[in-house]
Amino acid sequence: MNAEAPVTRDHRADFSGLAPGWSYLDSAATAQKPAAVIDAVARAYGEEYATVHRGVYARSATMTERYEAARARAARFIGAGSADEIVFVRGATEGINLVAASWGGANLKPGDRIVLSALEHHSNIVPWQLIAERTGAAIDVVPLTPAQGIDIDALESMLDERHRIVALNHVSNVTGAVADIPRAARAAHAVGAKLLVDGCQAAPRLPVDVDALGADFYVFSGHKLYGPTGIGVLWARGEILAEMPPYQGGGSMIETVTFEQSTYAPPPARFEAGTPHIVGAVGLHAAMDYVAGIGLDWIDAHERALAAETRDALRGINSLTLYGPEDGSGIVSFTMEGVHPHDIATILDEEQVAIRAGHHCCQPLMMTLDVPATARASFGIYSGAADVEKLVKGLERVQRIFG
Amino acid sequence: MNAEAPVTRDHRADFSGLAPGWSYLDSAATAQKPAAVIDAVARAYGEEYATVHRGVYARSATMTERYEAARARAARFIGAGSADEIVFVRGATEGINLVAASWGGANLKPGDRIVLSALEHHSNIVPWQLIAERTGAAIDVVPLTPAQGIDIDALESMLDERHRIVALNHVSNVTGAVADIPRAARAAHAVGAKLLVDGCQAAPRLPVDVDALGADFYVFSGHKLYGPTGIGVLWARGEILAEMPPYQGGGSMIETVTFEQSTYAPPPARFEAGTPHIVGAVGLHAAMDYVAGIGLDWIDAHERALAAETRDALRGINSLTLYGPEDGSGIVSFTMEGVHPHDIATILDEEQVAIRAGHHCCQPLMMTLDVPATARASFGIYSGAADVEKLVKGLERVQRIFG
Repeated sequence: MNAEAPVTRDHRADFSGLAPGWSYLDSAATAQKPAAVIDAVARAYGEEYATVHRGVYARSATMTERYEAARARAARFIGAGSADEIVFVRGATEGINLVAASWGGANLKPGDRIVLSALEHHSNIVPWQLIAERTGAAIDVVPLTPAQGIDIDALESMLDERHRIVALNHVSNVTGAVADIPRAARAAHAVGAKLLVDGCQAAPRLPVDVDALGADFYVFSGHKLYGPTGIGVLWARGEILAEMPPYQGGGSMIETVTFEQSTYAPPPARFEAGTPHIVGAVGLHAAMDYVAGIGLDWIDAHERALAAETRDALRGINSLTLYGPEDGSGIVSFTMEGVHPHDIATILDEEQVAIRAGHHCCQPLMMTLDVPATARASFGIYSGAADVEKLVKGLERVQRIFG
Repeated sequence: MNAEAPVTRDHRADFSGLAPGWSYLDSAATAQKPAAVIDAVARAYGEEYATVHRGVYARSATMTERYEAARARAARFIGAGSADEIVFVRGATEGINLVAASWGGANLKPGDRIVLSALEHHSNIVPWQLIAERTGAAIDVVPLTPAQGIDIDALESMLDERHRIVALNHVSNVTGAVADIPRAARAAHAVGAKLLVDGCQAAPRLPVDVDALGADFYVFSGHKLYGPTGIGVLWARGEILAEMPPYQGGGSMIETVTFEQSTYAPPPARFEAGTPHIVGAVGLHAAMDYVAGIGLDWIDAHERALAAETRDALRGINSLTLYGPEDGSGIVSFTMEGVHPHDIATILDEEQVAIRAGHHCCQPLMMTLDVPATARASFGIYSGAADVEKLVKGLERVQRIFG
C-alpha cells in the first residue's frame, strides 16, 4: 500500500450488502461480506467444487490444496508457528467448547479452578460451566476496572496453583475494552495455568500475533471477520494440541477403526471429524486476504477514530450514559435514561441505522453494569463519518420522542 | 411436473460444477450444487446478509425468518411433526456426536449396551466408542447379510433389555444396501431401546418419512443433498429432545446466565450455541426445494436404474468383484483382481471419470469384506447413461493396462 494514501478511504463499494443510505452499525454481531468473499464462495460451490482429503481425482486434490491453503493462511493471519496448530471449527463458540471439553475433560479435576472475567460473552462462560460440572472444577471471576475493562491487577492477585486455565476475551463485544493479554498470559503461566483468548472481536479489528500475546489457545469466528458463516478457527500451541483427546468422532479424524479400538490421527485432523465446511474455509481465506490487504493497522486506527468521534458526539446528548474505556476498539455501548435500548434500536431502524440492543450475550456484565440491556454501535472496514452522523441524528430524534 | 414427462431427464445444465465431458461419480462423497443453491448463497451473503435472532432492525428480522423457514422446510422434507424437532448441525457426523454425547451422556451407564452394524461409517462408530468409554457402556455389532446389507434377523435375536440405543445407516455408503428401518425400529422399541438412523446417503436418494420409519433420531448432511458444506440436520422426537442436556454452551442456547448457574432454552435453540451457519441453512433450504421439485421418487428410480445398468455392464468384466445387493440404491462398489482400487481411480481420472477409492470411512466393513479398499461409483440427479458408458470403457482400459 502507498504510504501517502489518504487516511480516509471508502471501502463501501466492495460490499453489496450495504444498501445505499443504510448505516450498518452491527459489525460486532456479524460483518458484511466483500465481493471477493462472495465470489470465492460461488466459485468453490461451482466450477471448483469437490470434497477434500479423500478423492483420488484431480478436482478433489485441487480442492484439498485450497482447503489446506486456507489453514496456512489462518496460521499466518494470527502469527501461529505452524498450520498444524489451526483447527477449523464452526466458530469461536465451538472452539471454546472444544477446548473446554477436550483439554478440560482431560486436565480438570475436583479442586481445580477456572478463571473467567465479568466481561465475558456467554460463549466463554457456559462451556466452562458445563465442563466444571462434569469434572468437579470451580469457576472464579475477575472483576472489572472502573472503565469496564478486565482488571488484570485483580487477576494477578487471585491466581494460585489451583488455577489450571484462564479464559478471557481480547476485545469486549460490549465495551470495546482491549485486554492486556501479554500481562494476563504472564500471570497465568506464573502459576502453571493455560490462557485461552476469545479473539472474536479482536481478529477483525487488531493485528493479532498469538506468540507475542503469549496465549495458549486463541479462537475467532469467520463471519465476524468478513468471511462465511459456519467457519472459525481454533489455534492451540502444538504441544498442547498433541496431548488433547478427540472431541467429536467420525471420518477423517481416525487412523484406524475397529469395533474393539480406534486410534486417532495427529492434529489438526484429530479435531476435524466428518466432511469439513470446505467452502467456508475457502471463503475465510478470501476474507483474510481482503482484510490483510486493507491492513489491520489501518482498520484498528479507523475504527478507534470512529469510536472516539461517536463518544465525543454522544457526550452532547445528556440523557446518554456511555460504557467502556475512552480508548477502546470500534464498539460503543450506551443507554438512554428512561428509554429501553430496544426502543432506541427500533427508532434508529426507521432512520436506516442498524444497531444492536440487548444483553449482547453478556448477562453477567449487564448485572455488573446494573442495566437490563445496552444499545451498541459497532464499526467495520466500511463504516465512516456519515454513519456516525446518522447515528447521532437518530439518537437526537429518540430523545425528542421520549424527552 | 408433467406425468407424461419422459423417464430420462437431463439436469446437468443446472450444475456449473459439471465440466463438459466430466463424469462425476462421487456424489456419495459430496454432491455438486445446482445454480439455485449457489444463487441463494450469494444473495444471502450479499443484499440479504444479517445476523439472526438478535438484531432489532428489519434486515435481521427478515434473515431470522429465512433461517427459521429453512428449519420448517427441513421438517417437511423428512416428515417431522414440528420444526422445533430440527436442530441445525455441521453435518451428520456432528448430529451423531451430539446425540451420543448429550443423550448418551445422560442415559448410558455401565452395563448398558449400544448396537451398531458392521456396515456403519466411522461417523456412526467412533462417537459411540467415545461415549461408551466415558459412561462404561459397551458396543454390540450386527453382522451383515450375504449381500452386505444389515442382518435385521440377527438384530432381532441379539437385542435385550440391556440395549439402550441402536444406531444404523439407512443406505450404506459402500454397498448401496437399503436397511429395513421400520423393522429395526420395532425391534429396538420392543426392548425399550431408541433408534438413531444415519440418513446421510438416504436423504439425497429416497423419500424419507421419519414417522413412517419409526426412528427416534435421524441425521443427514446438507452437502450430500446438493446443499452447502458445514450444515446438516439432526431430527429427534420432541419428547426426547426436550429431556436432553445441552451439548455445546454459548450464546442463543441459554435462558439466563449467572456465574453461579445458567438455565437453558428449550429445543431446538438449546442445541444451537453461537451464531449459526445462517447462510448454510438458507442454501440448504434452496437445495431441499430443488430436490423436492425434481422428486425423490424420480431420483430413487433414476439412480437405481443407473446402478443396475452399471452392475450389468460390470459383470461383463470378469476380473471384477461387485459388492452389495442387486437392488441397492445408487452406489456401486467393486474391486478388480490384482489392481489396487487407488490405481483404478487414478486411471479413470485420466479418462475424466471421477470415482472414489479407499475404505470409505468403513474400515470394519473392509475387514469383513477382506479387502483393504474398494472402488466406488455413486450417482446423483445429474448422472446419466453416458457416465455409465465412460465408467465401463475406463474400467476396460484399466483391465488392459494391468491385464
